Amino acid sequence: MYKATISITLRPSILDPEGKTVHHALTNLGYDEIDQVRMGKRAEVWIDEEDEDDARRVATKACEKLLANPVTENYEIHLEAVSPDEMSNASTG
Amino acid sequence: MYKATISITLRPSILDPEGKTVHHALTNLGYDEIDQVRMGKRAEVWIDEEDEDDARRVATKACEKLLANPVTENYEIHLEAVSPDEMSNASTG
Repeated sequence: MYKATISITLRPSILDPEGKTVHHALTNLGYDEIDQVRMGKRAEVWIDEEDEDDARRVATKACEKLLANPVTENYEIHLEAVSPDEMSNASTG
Repeated sequence: MYKATISITLRPSILDPEGKTVHHALTNLGYDEIDQVRMGKRAEVWIDEEDEDDARRVATKACEKLLANPVTENYEIHLEAVSPDEMSNASTG
């Protein structure tokens, strides 16, 4: 089993109103050292495949079909082998 | 200048309806290999500090005061030194 940690970020040319709002709020709180904020998404996906290439294929398809908008977003997949126990820990605490 | 990449995840004991919905949608698309999905947030914060400890202190405060909900979420900060040019690239493409 593999755990895919997927980072989904807006493409650099796309405006990020959420990031601008967060930046503005942080400036109001006194954090003048912060120059820019870009917000994105993160997905953790547990994939029941023995082979890393198969797991990467599933994660890539999940990004392309559902998780990321190919026009406005980039995605990056980081895979790590995990035991099935680690999955159930994640859902029950 | 430092770029802080902040991963904000729901604590393991907290239910994740967004993750359940994504998992359900992926199953409907035929990805039966996927056993679980947990969704989270990601923030990239450019901090104008020369010292890594100072940058980490700003990023930690930003998480505690605004970005993360300390009751339901965990956060993880990854810092890397960047040049100011890399920031403007990120906003203009």
